[in-house]
Amino acid sequence: MAEIRERYGLRIITEAIDNESLALVAEWADVIQIGARNMQNFSLLKKAGKLRKPVLLKRGLSATLEEFLMSAEYIMSEGNYQVILCERGVRTFADHTRNTLDLSIVPAVQRLSHLPILVDPSHGTGKRDSVLPMARAAVATGCDGILVEVHNHPEKALSDGPQSIYPDQFARMMDELGQIAPVVGPSGRAGAIRGAIKCWVPHPSAGFLAEEWERSA
Amino acid sequence: MAEIRERYGLRIITEAIDNESLALVAEWADVIQIGARNMQNFSLLKKAGKLRKPVLLKRGLSATLEEFLMSAEYIMSEGNYQVILCERGVRTFADHTRNTLDLSIVPAVQRLSHLPILVDPSHGTGKRDSVLPMARAAVATGCDGILVEVHNHPEKALSDGPQSIYPDQFARMMDELGQIAPVVGPSGRAGAIRGAIKCWVPHPSAGFLAEEWERSA
Amino acid sequence: MAEIRERYGLRIITEAIDNESLALVAEWADVIQIGARNMQNFSLLKKAGKLRKPVLLKRGLSATLEEFLMSAEYIMSEGNYQVILCERGVRTFADHTRNTLDLSIVPAVQRLSHLPILVDPSHGTGKRDSVLPMARAAVATGCDGILVEVHNHPEKALSDGPQSIYPDQFARMMDELGQIAPVVGPSGRAGAIRGAIKCWVPHPSAGFLAEEWERSA
Amino acid sequence: MAEIRERYGLRIITEAIDNESLALVAEWADVIQIGARNMQNFSLLKKAGKLRKPVLLKRGLSATLEEFLMSAEYIMSEGNYQVILCERGVRTFADHTRNTLDLSIVPAVQRLSHLPILVDPSHGTGKRDSVLPMARAAVATGCDGILVEVHNHPEKALSDGPQSIYPDQFARMMDELGQIAPVVGPSGRAGAIRGAIKCWVPHPSAGFLAEEWERSA
Repeated sequence: MAEIRERYGLRIITEAIDNESLALVAEWADVIQIGARNMQNFSLLKKAGKLRKPVLLKRGLSATLEEFLMSAEYIMSEGNYQVILCERGVRTFADHTRNTLDLSIVPAVQRLSHLPILVDPSHGTGKRDSVLPMARAAVATGCDGILVEVHNHPEKALSDGPQSIYPDQFARMMDELGQIAPVVGPSGRAGAIRGAIKCWVPHPSAGFLAEEWERSA
Repeated sequence: MAEIRERYGLRIITEAIDNESLALVAEWADVIQIGARNMQNFSLLKKAGKLRKPVLLKRGLSATLEEFLMSAEYIMSEGNYQVILCERGVRTFADHTRNTLDLSIVPAVQRLSHLPILVDPSHGTGKRDSVLPMARAAVATGCDGILVEVHNHPEKALSDGPQSIYPDQFARMMDELGQIAPVVGPSGRAGAIRGAIKCWVPHPSAGFLAEEWERSA
Repeated sequence: MAEIRERYGLRIITEAIDNESLALVAEWADVIQIGARNMQNFSLLKKAGKLRKPVLLKRGLSATLEEFLMSAEYIMSEGNYQVILCERGVRTFADHTRNTLDLSIVPAVQRLSHLPILVDPSHGTGKRDSVLPMARAAVATGCDGILVEVHNHPEKALSDGPQSIYPDQFARMMDELGQIAPVVGPSGRAGAIRGAIKCWVPHPSAGFLAEEWERSA
Repeated sequence: MAEIRERYGLRIITEAIDNESLALVAEWADVIQIGARNMQNFSLLKKAGKLRKPVLLKRGLSATLEEFLMSAEYIMSEGNYQVILCERGVRTFADHTRNTLDLSIVPAVQRLSHLPILVDPSHGTGKRDSVLPMARAAVATGCDGILVEVHNHPEKALSDGPQSIYPDQFARMMDELGQIAPVVGPSGRAGAIRGAIKCWVPHPSAGFLAEEWERSA
């Protein structure tokens, strides 16, 4: 992964699933991801709070806004203020998508917190055909970025194939998002996260590539 | 209401809550609304199917996609094919909005049905501050229109004040939507509903005004 | 149906789905049922409130306790105080039963209201094998009765076959319930509804039979 | 805690929240609890699977039956077959209880698995007044035991006071459960867990007391 980072100039996000893997991830990744199923793993949150690397915290499948922000507080209370929130769908009765992507949490987070909030339409829908429309919708809410799974052979993907988009869909998506983002404007929020990791792409062979789009400042 | 329609050239949507009110609504309104709480009032659906006026069918608070489309079938099975679907939020555990606006139903409906689908971010969030971001998101999904509540004195509104936006917010919204809509494009769907009622505005004094925005065709 | 009532001494509950069917049901049935999908059909509720026959009001699929009691108020506000509430399962993410039977509403209703509350474990689970355990559980909460679907040939039932129990299961159930009911005691509630309709059984051939069990007073 | 165990002959359950605390808990407790928020902490599940002490696995707030059983498999796949499942309420829209106690999972688990299943009506309702009715209902489903919080001064409890019952309520509960349990019978399941820990009681001063009731075999 270090090799890929250097060769392509990419930054890497990867997930820590317990205190042991946290040390490894903290050493190699640029951003530490804490997954939805660990959003209330308070032991892991506190350990991540002792590090000085950005933490991407995904919303739990049935977490309220308050619980989501409290989990971020667990990290920050240990001194690490670089927390990035991420909406990735919640569990409801609805069965036309794998989860229900709750985009309304974006403006709600922005009213209560200074933390950046990303949206993951890949996990949030679980269906390739819904990723583009929901990516556009996410950017239109004024979120600070999106995470999208891309794969050049989704049918061969080890995981999450059905929700991965093709590279040409990715290109079209980036073009559309680039047109929608300026409409939303800076929405009064600090431009501090400009250039933060905006799009998360599992690399076909061996890692993660990050491409960026910038929000009009 | 007939007077308002003539004076301002507006079209009127209003709700039928039972078979009795249906006759009255059918006589005066341009579009008959069937509310979320009546989405599975099969008696009302069938009666509406015997009319020859457009029916706006709102998704029930806990309706699956299949149930939503089946309710539309109840209307169409009686011969009335002018059915407009409307997502207005579903009931989940989330408490930062009054309902959880499920925008992912837009692409899901578009895969399975030719029916137009609108989004109501006012009922869908119940909070004025969330209406604009979610209205933009709705249009970005590629939906066929939105319903928005506007009031010049929301604090004096008889109902739904807290979710009604101010006229100047409405103006800003229309400007933003006008920029996002062309990005989405015609999305392969018939332009037949161009010019259909796109925005629903409770009039400050005595009725409903409808303003329109057109989708790039 | 009138014939069956006379021959077997049974009382009949049947559903009114609109204002038209309400008149017919009110004429022939002993109890008027308003189904879950009509729990917020306020027009129907008010019409039922003008009658002087007991109304069995089923909880909507996503109704809160407050909304459930408010719907009962719609009936009572017109002068008909003979309202019987019925929990029949709510819609959640859980997929091991058709609905999630929310038995905790029984003590919650009993704290806030004098109205009798029944439980329907047939619709509440949708699975024959779960009906007996949940019927026992319902009675153990202290509810005022249960509705159970029984059929001697469930596989030939026009509707709800998979959730109908066999007559021998019904006999075993009644025996078990008869042992659990005395443990719960009168729970401080008036014995007024003793002898009310306690069990609802679609008749194999042509109607509904009601069998009763009495709560220890 | 070791002292209390010896003096009163009680067994102790306590929670492991991460791999570090697991070692400590495994040394001192008789049963290791894995809480709802850690149900999908796969790292912790695997570590618990390497121990040879019983593990009490609580259902996650939005876990399906399949996910619940899969989490038990994570433990068993490492060789520890002493897994006890526990329903403690799931998250839904309903707001009359803190969680919605899903008792229907008891017969569903019993159809698919040989694992014992307990019910926690204290966390499952969050309200003292609902604990007794739901404890009776739990036993009536045929579950293998219950966990109940008891405190002699709930108003002074460090946590979970509002859902803790008083000692005299506990005595009455045990009496009622003792009458309901024989009605349910052995339900065809092995009597192997007879005498297992059936009731979990936070001790007023310093630990946990376990009282038992036996199911008729």
